[in-house]
Amino acid sequence: MFSCWLSQLCRGLSTPTRRTTQLIWSSASRSLVLSSQRRIPELSSFVARTNTCGELRSSHLGQEVTLCGWIQFRRQNIFLVLRDFHGLVQVVIPQDEPAASVKKILCEAPMESVVQVSGTVISRPPGQKNPKMPTGEIEIKVKTAKLLNSCKKLPFEIKDFMKKTEALRLQYRYLDLRSVQMQYNLRLRSQMVMKMREYLCNLHGFVDVETPTLFKRTPGGAKEFVIPSREPGKFYSLPQSPQQFKQLLMVGGLDRYFQVARCYRDEGSRPDRQPEFTQIVDISDMFRNTEVGFLQDALSKPQGTVKAICIRKGAKYLKRKDIESIRKFAADHFNEEVLPIFLKTNENWNSPVAKFIMEEQGSGLVKLLETQEEDVVLLTAGEHKRACSLMGKLRLECADLLEARGVVLRDPALFSFLWVVDFPLFLPKEENPQELESAHHPFTAPHPSDIHLLYTEPHKVRSQHYDLVLNGNEIGGGSIRIHNSELQHYVLATVLKEDVKLLSHLLQALDYGAPPHGGIALGLDRLMCLVTGAPSIRDVIAFPKSFRGHDLMSNAPDSIPPEELKPYHIQVSWPTDAETEKSSSNHPCRSES
Amino acid sequence: MFSCWLSQLCRGLSTPTRRTTQLIWSSASRSLVLSSQRRIPELSSFVARTNTCGELRSSHLGQEVTLCGWIQFRRQNIFLVLRDFHGLVQVVIPQDEPAASVKKILCEAPMESVVQVSGTVISRPPGQKNPKMPTGEIEIKVKTAKLLNSCKKLPFEIKDFMKKTEALRLQYRYLDLRSVQMQYNLRLRSQMVMKMREYLCNLHGFVDVETPTLFKRTPGGAKEFVIPSREPGKFYSLPQSPQQFKQLLMVGGLDRYFQVARCYRDEGSRPDRQPEFTQIVDISDMFRNTEVGFLQDALSKPQGTVKAICIRKGAKYLKRKDIESIRKFAADHFNEEVLPIFLKTNENWNSPVAKFIMEEQGSGLVKLLETQEEDVVLLTAGEHKRACSLMGKLRLECADLLEARGVVLRDPALFSFLWVVDFPLFLPKEENPQELESAHHPFTAPHPSDIHLLYTEPHKVRSQHYDLVLNGNEIGGGSIRIHNSELQHYVLATVLKEDVKLLSHLLQALDYGAPPHGGIALGLDRLMCLVTGAPSIRDVIAFPKSFRGHDLMSNAPDSIPPEELKPYHIQVSWPTDAETEKSSSNHPCRSES
Repeated sequence: MFSCWLSQLCRGLSTPTRRTTQLIWSSASRSLVLSSQRRIPELSSFVARTNTCGELRSSHLGQEVTLCGWIQFRRQNIFLVLRDFHGLVQVVIPQDEPAASVKKILCEAPMESVVQVSGTVISRPPGQKNPKMPTGEIEIKVKTAKLLNSCKKLPFEIKDFMKKTEALRLQYRYLDLRSVQMQYNLRLRSQMVMKMREYLCNLHGFVDVETPTLFKRTPGGAKEFVIPSREPGKFYSLPQSPQQFKQLLMVGGLDRYFQVARCYRDEGSRPDRQPEFTQIVDISDMFRNTEVGFLQDALSKPQGTVKAICIRKGAKYLKRKDIESIRKFAADHFNEEVLPIFLKTNENWNSPVAKFIMEEQGSGLVKLLETQEEDVVLLTAGEHKRACSLMGKLRLECADLLEARGVVLRDPALFSFLWVVDFPLFLPKEENPQELESAHHPFTAPHPSDIHLLYTEPHKVRSQHYDLVLNGNEIGGGSIRIHNSELQHYVLATVLKEDVKLLSHLLQALDYGAPPHGGIALGLDRLMCLVTGAPSIRDVIAFPKSFRGHDLMSNAPDSIPPEELKPYHIQVSWPTDAETEKSSSNHPCRSES
Repeated sequence: MFSCWLSQLCRGLSTPTRRTTQLIWSSASRSLVLSSQRRIPELSSFVARTNTCGELRSSHLGQEVTLCGWIQFRRQNIFLVLRDFHGLVQVVIPQDEPAASVKKILCEAPMESVVQVSGTVISRPPGQKNPKMPTGEIEIKVKTAKLLNSCKKLPFEIKDFMKKTEALRLQYRYLDLRSVQMQYNLRLRSQMVMKMREYLCNLHGFVDVETPTLFKRTPGGAKEFVIPSREPGKFYSLPQSPQQFKQLLMVGGLDRYFQVARCYRDEGSRPDRQPEFTQIVDISDMFRNTEVGFLQDALSKPQGTVKAICIRKGAKYLKRKDIESIRKFAADHFNEEVLPIFLKTNENWNSPVAKFIMEEQGSGLVKLLETQEEDVVLLTAGEHKRACSLMGKLRLECADLLEARGVVLRDPALFSFLWVVDFPLFLPKEENPQELESAHHPFTAPHPSDIHLLYTEPHKVRSQHYDLVLNGNEIGGGSIRIHNSELQHYVLATVLKEDVKLLSHLLQALDYGAPPHGGIALGLDRLMCLVTGAPSIRDVIAFPKSFRGHDLMSNAPDSIPPEELKPYHIQVSWPTDAETEKSSSNHPCRSES
């Protein structure tokens, strides 16, 4: 239901071009108009303008209008293109002597200056209409003009911004925001969040509750930001998520709570993060009695498996060097062997082993993978998790290769949702596999069918955690929570061996009539990236931090003189030179839930 | 236009009783239903309940329903009242032998336990219908029941919460949230914000943009929270308001921006703050040639003035001791004299002075104040600001007195809005009146008519700041901002003598084509207090901090061991005993803009 709604939501919005950096102003501004301004905003009596630049059409012919906007472009001192948040319009600069002062203002104002013009909406002369521009049938014959603010020479042209370095874009963020792409992204984000709110509040009676951002520190919460208070030695923290508050609201009877919340995580963010979600086929059983050495090896180990994926039409489009690069990738990154198997028997086999497999298990493979002529099967064997990771990577790799050869595989306008369920509740600790840690967090409820295993074989318990994946990217996740205080205590104290004292307020709350409850959190930044096709979450946030967590515009974080730190009862511990070298940097990462 | 919209908004919501602490459940839950649940929320196929408790009516008779909720009340082991976020419903506990297990569950579950019941909606027997309860015509004949979570004995009854101490309410906030009043306040807040969003986004094309909460510290911003980063000696701060970002968004072309933002101010908050906004009449000119001594004295001083207010029907309702207490108040708190003047000539005059004034300026006063028989005029003289303050206080005082005598003056259901304009742009510094400081902040634009005075007599310049007042309480304020870089530089450097380097990014932004712009910020917490009649903003916030800035539920702020502070490169400076005594406490205050 949830992903269906999201899918509808995405369809309802106009789909922009993905990864388009070279934008044509007119077409981009048209899509902006379509999506963000279905309704022309009313203007109050307090503003000078009578209309927005982008809304004027043939139906306005003859009207006297006053417009305000930025000078986008000037041609031969005859035409101006004026821009506001709504779009572009062409302005005709008067050339007659009595209007000399108007001409002077409009011709001398630097690009990106803000002007106010009044004049008449007229039809463009035959042959000069621009069908690519929403306002392309008309132009404004200007009578008066006013320079509202002059713009100094810009360090670069607005339209070239995308080619500039990330650092420069962040330093002059207020100029970057004027680009069609940023305007589109931020306005689409606003609309999308509004649609979500309407769905939740108006259609389903949800209640929007703001939870605090100054909270108690999570013990050992190494990724939290801390805030010194004016009580010596006492600190708040910025919560990594409204986790505990969400549950307390449920205990408090605030059924159907939601919030567009900020989460503060003091960690690095990768712009191209691609969590791996793979569809693969397990063919281990087919090879239980194989005579092929590396398959035997793999299957003899406890977590050993044989995995295969089928590349449709692979034999037709993939070249020998592609296959070689795939095998090299597998060997270099996963230390595993990949066997390519071509289904057409007249193809050249890469290895006698592959040929042998084909003869031995060929018909089984063809049946299981539903292979057809010209398909290629890639086969690997090894430890389960690593084999899955490898096949997931190879699947994406092959898709890229095929798309580069002109095969249409992934429709960029399509939104494909997928639920991932049945996660394990606990995982062995990496440093000490005898002990368990929560796969997600200790508040996740066990799967109802597995609850008896909690007391005998906790590592086998599945959780009621679920992730939502859009076009291969995780965009959200959530869980049904433990509402029983004793069960929560058992998980914390006995299974995870944590100090329950630190969560006593939550355990107490569960004791006072906590209803069964669960929820989900969407990563809004990530979702907006997918919807807009933006290469980085920085393109869907108005004022993002740099990769190193810096605000390049205002130069935050910044130093504070020691005497100004006194009210907070802290002082800086300057590191020694040796410490400086190995010190790691600070990467805040924002996401919404 | 803005206050008109707010007024409509407030009217559209059902007006709750003001300052009602003793709530009758049925009537309160009815108003909750009316306002928050005009549309019955749809339930998905994933939940056990078929209906909510509060929605059932006679039209549901005969239906098989499954409900979930808290046990609100139990009578003689025959009836239960079940509560969910939607309201209350009566449940009939089966008494027959085959249903013994159902009876056992429902009779043994402690109050506030969570149960799920299935049964049939039946009509209440004649004479047992409860017209005060929205579901009062029906009850549920239970067939099966399930205890979802048992509740331990509560430290107090939920309905008695309002009588408990603030500290106890905050410690058990999740229980306090179950009260009808808190549910009402928070759900109304959610609706009200949603209405605001619909108005701004859908009707007027505004764009909702989130601005960062980790920002550069304002130099000397003593009321800011600071956040150490992992770079030695470098700090972020939590912005007191999105002040600078708002302006940068305007420079960035994000016309019609809004945000429901959090502001972080490290200062005390008074639950009963009452800024003084007074309507008075200045009658100084009438007394220019008076012979009355204290009026002469006052008017001979530079800021001297004579002020009067008219108390309608004062002579009828105010007693002599009331007048005495008013005069005493003025003398004690303002060191000023107040002359009461009764219009009916056959009244006893309090002083020969008053009589003399009446004879001398009587007709003028009657005309100017539009006084009628039985009115009382209170007159004072003194320094302008103090006289205004005094008269404002007396006006409220007299209103309280008259209302205590049964006169209906202020309709609690009425929302009266008032704009306050023409504030001074600068004020003399208290510690050094020769220097000026900003009355609001240095980015406020001067009044267009006064702009020439900026260079000659800056103290006379009015600002384009405006405040919005609802029922005597300031609920919002805003200003037209300076968009010209040179003007901003002049105000900062020449008038205010501030270091412009620290705001270089803003000055630079203004240079690159900043459009003329302005805005307003509403204090959402305050507004919700007025709308709901809550005595404190803590009653309209889900998880408020205590007066001293503590989270009494989780015990934040809390200590952090020194080794865990290492990544932040800070250490605690423990104060000496002497410093501890004079150290001030930490009061964070939340508001929205």
